[in-house]
Amino acid sequence: MSYTHTVQYYETDKMSITHHSNYIRWMEEARVAFLSEIGWDFPKLEAMGIVSPVLNVTCDYKKSTVFAEKITIHVSVERFMGVKLQLGYVMKNEAGDVVCRASSVHAFLDAKGKPVKMKQDYPGFFQKLTELANAAAEKQ
Amino acid sequence: MSYTHTVQYYETDKMSITHHSNYIRWMEEARVAFLSEIGWDFPKLEAMGIVSPVLNVTCDYKKSTVFAEKITIHVSVERFMGVKLQLGYVMKNEAGDVVCRASSVHAFLDAKGKPVKMKQDYPGFFQKLTELANAAAEKQ
Amino acid sequence: MSYTHTVQYYETDKMSITHHSNYIRWMEEARVAFLSEIGWDFPKLEAMGIVSPVLNVTCDYKKSTVFAEKITIHVSVERFMGVKLQLGYVMKNEAGDVVCRASSVHAFLDAKGKPVKMKQDYPGFFQKLTELANAAAEKQ
Amino acid sequence: MSYTHTVQYYETDKMSITHHSNYIRWMEEARVAFLSEIGWDFPKLEAMGIVSPVLNVTCDYKKSTVFAEKITIHVSVERFMGVKLQLGYVMKNEAGDVVCRASSVHAFLDAKGKPVKMKQDYPGFFQKLTELANAAAEKQ
Repeated sequence: MSYTHTVQYYETDKMSITHHSNYIRWMEEARVAFLSEIGWDFPKLEAMGIVSPVLNVTCDYKKSTVFAEKITIHVSVERFMGVKLQLGYVMKNEAGDVVCRASSVHAFLDAKGKPVKMKQDYPGFFQKLTELANAAAEKQ
Repeated sequence: MSYTHTVQYYETDKMSITHHSNYIRWMEEARVAFLSEIGWDFPKLEAMGIVSPVLNVTCDYKKSTVFAEKITIHVSVERFMGVKLQLGYVMKNEAGDVVCRASSVHAFLDAKGKPVKMKQDYPGFFQKLTELANAAAEKQ
Repeated sequence: MSYTHTVQYYETDKMSITHHSNYIRWMEEARVAFLSEIGWDFPKLEAMGIVSPVLNVTCDYKKSTVFAEKITIHVSVERFMGVKLQLGYVMKNEAGDVVCRASSVHAFLDAKGKPVKMKQDYPGFFQKLTELANAAAEKQ
Repeated sequence: MSYTHTVQYYETDKMSITHHSNYIRWMEEARVAFLSEIGWDFPKLEAMGIVSPVLNVTCDYKKSTVFAEKITIHVSVERFMGVKLQLGYVMKNEAGDVVCRASSVHAFLDAKGKPVKMKQDYPGFFQKLTELANAAAEKQ
């Protein structure tokens, strides 16, 4: 799955490059698109009463980006053991250079803040994430 | 009432000045401080089930501002007739120059989205805003 | 010219709607696309040493918007007299309801901060904006 | 060194908590205050032609925060070997609970984008950061 974000003027800072905090937001944009593509979009998850707070983010800035650049973000499932989901992100500029490598870890909680029993209550979603995690592991 | 905001690095853009969208956010910061100072802070309003959506903002940028500048924002009640509240904002830099003049208009709605009967249901808040509107009108 | 922005999760606030400050940023996104479409994109302007600070924004919020909604923004030239450019924005949701009407005023300055002599120095850009302003005036 | 940030309304999201991307911005706010306190504030560094891009950020979200909470951020030098500076951040709410642990890595570059010879060219800054790194190491 890949998602494209165009760098906005308001995302630049006085170094004339994209402010580093925005990449964290692009990860979310790409994540939303990713979940939608695998059939479990955020509005659907929220309608089922599931919220998915972010537990951790890590971001390695490899190369700066500038206004109007188109950044392609590839998302993959790095780890999924039923409770926590770890996603990986590789962001590239139009020349194909990696500009950022990142990861994020997420929980799935019900309306009361308890972890969702994914395997039991949402077997389709569980299976899909497990498959993607296995596929990503094999590639390495 | 006056509130001070220090320009953050992440608020600058590639023109090396504060991005104009941030002044809209500073208005909110100053408004929250203003309501708190007159005894009707946001968390209290929200606890009473009142939400206060923004209906309009207008912002006149007079002079650019830069990273690390301290901007003082003076808030006043420009109009209040019981349903809509119009606030005015004058923002000055440390030299005392006006950098921005702005206004915002707000409604007060209950949990169901209906306008709150301010005079009847919250006479203390109604009176306070009326007094401030009158005081501001006299000054002019 | 119309531009589409999808509401991001990070653009929502605790009222579960889009925070009002983001519409100011969407205006910029649409403006950048608009200038690009008429052949005078921002990177080109900046390469010619022209900066275009925002002098004023006005925003009328008509209807709230929520996460994942696609907002279409129509941009038009409301006024252009050679020095200041006033753009108008009409934002609609997928049902076609107007969610926001807005305008912004811009100057065109050279590297030294002096107003650009648009008609003399950039006759092509001057003519294009004049045509668009006239066309918009006739429509009304 | 500790810095206090009050959670703004515009920093919340539809989960009614602070959006996770904002903590990255608070790290910058605290970092700017930290450098200022040790006598090497950003405007001074920039006046000397030094820019300090962010190479990496890591953020562990421990507990959510909400609108109007005051978050205290303690900054320390985790590592400094002359070229890269790693800072650590511990953020606590008013009850003293840790809400976030984070770190960031920074380079110091001259106007041409070359790494600054810190020890040679800025011995005072070099010594200060080395002292702070040693003091932090001893504490552990």
